Amino acid sequence: MIRVIHTGDKIFEETFFQIKRRGKLFNQELWAIVQGIVEDVVKRGDEALFAYTEKFDGVSLNAQTVEASSREIEAALGRVSKEDLRALKLAAERIEKFHLKQETPDLMTSEEGIELGQRVLPLERVGIYAPGGSAVYPSTVLMAAIPARIAGVEEMVLVTPCKSGELNPLIAAAAGLGGVARIFKIGGAQAIAALAYGTKSVPAVDKIVGPGNAYVAAAKKMVYGQVAIDMIAGPSEVLVIADGTAVAAHAAADLLAQAEHDVMASAVLLTPLEALARQVAGEVEKQLPELSRRAVAKQSIEDFGALIVTRDMEEAIAIANRFAPEHLELMVADFVGVLKKVRNAGAAFQGGSTPETLGDYLAGPNHILPTGGTARFSSPLGVYDFVKRTNVLCFSREALQKYGAAAAHLAGMEGFDAHARSVTIRMKGKTS
Amino acid sequence: MIRVIHTGDKIFEETFFQIKRRGKLFNQELWAIVQGIVEDVVKRGDEALFAYTEKFDGVSLNAQTVEASSREIEAALGRVSKEDLRALKLAAERIEKFHLKQETPDLMTSEEGIELGQRVLPLERVGIYAPGGSAVYPSTVLMAAIPARIAGVEEMVLVTPCKSGELNPLIAAAAGLGGVARIFKIGGAQAIAALAYGTKSVPAVDKIVGPGNAYVAAAKKMVYGQVAIDMIAGPSEVLVIADGTAVAAHAAADLLAQAEHDVMASAVLLTPLEALARQVAGEVEKQLPELSRRAVAKQSIEDFGALIVTRDMEEAIAIANRFAPEHLELMVADFVGVLKKVRNAGAAFQGGSTPETLGDYLAGPNHILPTGGTARFSSPLGVYDFVKRTNVLCFSREALQKYGAAAAHLAGMEGFDAHARSVTIRMKGKTS
Repeated sequence: MIRVIHTGDKIFEETFFQIKRRGKLFNQELWAIVQGIVEDVVKRGDEALFAYTEKFDGVSLNAQTVEASSREIEAALGRVSKEDLRALKLAAERIEKFHLKQETPDLMTSEEGIELGQRVLPLERVGIYAPGGSAVYPSTVLMAAIPARIAGVEEMVLVTPCKSGELNPLIAAAAGLGGVARIFKIGGAQAIAALAYGTKSVPAVDKIVGPGNAYVAAAKKMVYGQVAIDMIAGPSEVLVIADGTAVAAHAAADLLAQAEHDVMASAVLLTPLEALARQVAGEVEKQLPELSRRAVAKQSIEDFGALIVTRDMEEAIAIANRFAPEHLELMVADFVGVLKKVRNAGAAFQGGSTPETLGDYLAGPNHILPTGGTARFSSPLGVYDFVKRTNVLCFSREALQKYGAAAAHLAGMEGFDAHARSVTIRMKGKTS
Repeated sequence: MIRVIHTGDKIFEETFFQIKRRGKLFNQELWAIVQGIVEDVVKRGDEALFAYTEKFDGVSLNAQTVEASSREIEAALGRVSKEDLRALKLAAERIEKFHLKQETPDLMTSEEGIELGQRVLPLERVGIYAPGGSAVYPSTVLMAAIPARIAGVEEMVLVTPCKSGELNPLIAAAAGLGGVARIFKIGGAQAIAALAYGTKSVPAVDKIVGPGNAYVAAAKKMVYGQVAIDMIAGPSEVLVIADGTAVAAHAAADLLAQAEHDVMASAVLLTPLEALARQVAGEVEKQLPELSRRAVAKQSIEDFGALIVTRDMEEAIAIANRFAPEHLELMVADFVGVLKKVRNAGAAFQGGSTPETLGDYLAGPNHILPTGGTARFSSPLGVYDFVKRTNVLCFSREALQKYGAAAAHLAGMEGFDAHARSVTIRMKGKTS
């Protein structure tokens, strides 16, 4: 049921690209729909926001009800069990502990008569998107809010669609633990547009973070530039590299954990050992029927799962680097040695005793990770995503005299004589 | 000729937005053109790339000529004067010196049985866009390439349109000083598409940096996600805050230096002193006719220039923070005091003896800065733009036993029992 492919097989390259490119095709129709929604919210504000919420979520909101009241939030929190709250608190504590280590200090340098540097300041207001579809992810709310709070963001605003009309208790709990100030019961492209441009009810933010469906992803791309965004999140994926020390049942469990997310999720194992690949295939067959989300996992495994037999470990690592997976599990004897050769991955797990699930929930590092090969050039969400820098330049009159001529020369070289004059006029001393 | 407006005037808010929003309207027609070009280059590769280069740049290229040969590069370098080269070298040295201070260290933490961290790695291949229109900017090539080299980027590829068919000598010189490995004589949306997706002749890169015209900006937004981009650069701008210590002639020279860039550039001065505003207006009138680019500067000053008289310094600073300018000059007695209140600016200059031109060319900090209000959430280009992070997670078996139950509980809470099983299967010990 899950494919076993050798890298020497003709079909290998095709399979590799089919998996890697899943969900990445630009959808002209989707883009046009999202553009219509975004432009309408920009133009008509709340009116459009409420109309789309009624249309897509089936919930009728107004300026009084779009934001969750403190009474609503308290009522939601009252429905969270003590066990759930305790587990969320443990996760929040560990996420905070790790992210406190991500320092973003100012930079100041000085030489004779010249002070140069960069000031680092938090963003003022951040929007967090929390999906509210078939699954809800309070863990993602913690992962988005805690680094923002550590960075010193003044106000965090959460948007989440509430199709039942009611706030999800776990989302409310995570928002509270994360320091979110306000919760709006909206979602989809209309919520992204409202956060980016502001409406009468929803304040405009500086950055929007958090994953969403294809509409949300397209809307985030569309408003990028008006606000910052964390990334354009695609479907989730895991790539496992296994040698003879890997336990087949564990590897299979990890592949299925990824596959249960979503029919577009991808779970791939690379190993030089054909026997291990066959064993893992057997374990997948065995474990799958026991899962509650087996229908989703089965389709994902069939469409975007694969067990790939490589010539050797080097080839497995090279393929992983080409794939640039969101999650990379190394079920290998020499974790440190293999890790050194990893160039592109959102997160790397010592798979023997560190299943991805630990990182998904409470290890501490962020689980909002680059997907779809974007680990080639982007990073896990972190405190650094919630600050911005300002260059600071201060020359004394003497330093200006020393470097002014060269600066004016360079300006002249590019044909900008007004630039040159702004220097030379000061070198002559006060002229007015 | 340059407007003098009081913040109490009815027209103030309108003027503020007219200036701030210039060039930010989404252009559906431009987007459709760029989309056609990008999709064609993705589909037909070199063939489309060469056809658009012929159409837009009037230059006929092929697989042999699209990349500048070492002979071409040497010939171009031979046409650079000693003075120009010396000035570029000084700039390169100072840019390097400053950017070497931007450290991006790995993060490793450990507690009992748990090692967590982030590895920081350079991007493998970066593309630099250098415009080749009426003006060329070798300084920008240095500003883009030097931080990338310091980050450890393996290969830097420069694209620049060569409408004459010949490589610009100053661009070639800056590319050499910056450590650029390969130069391609292409530009526009077609060059961005080639860098993002790769063609037979042009290698695909991980990130594209550097400013360009509206086509280039739209293409960068379009390919964002396939590759990283630095930012969507808009027209340049300066905002000057001046008190009684400012010299009117200097302030006027700085406004004009900005205005000469481009008819879409903006130059605004804020001061509580009406007399100073009038003086600066007079100086602008006086200095403008002496400039070689006076036609451009005049139009920019008329369309997007203003001298704004504020109630007090506090209001001037508040307006600057709302504007979030690319360049902020503080021509004030208390530079440090005012700077502390600045929340949003790409770069802040002690304007008395630090005209923006010093920062544009050789002070050291980067001149590729967020424009159009994006300083609210983004930063000057830096070494940090050319690295990415990978989370690393390693739990011992004992640590897994300690935290496994909580992780499994959280997974179950979100409805993911396969996630929970990937933990519990390991807690029971080897099962296969």
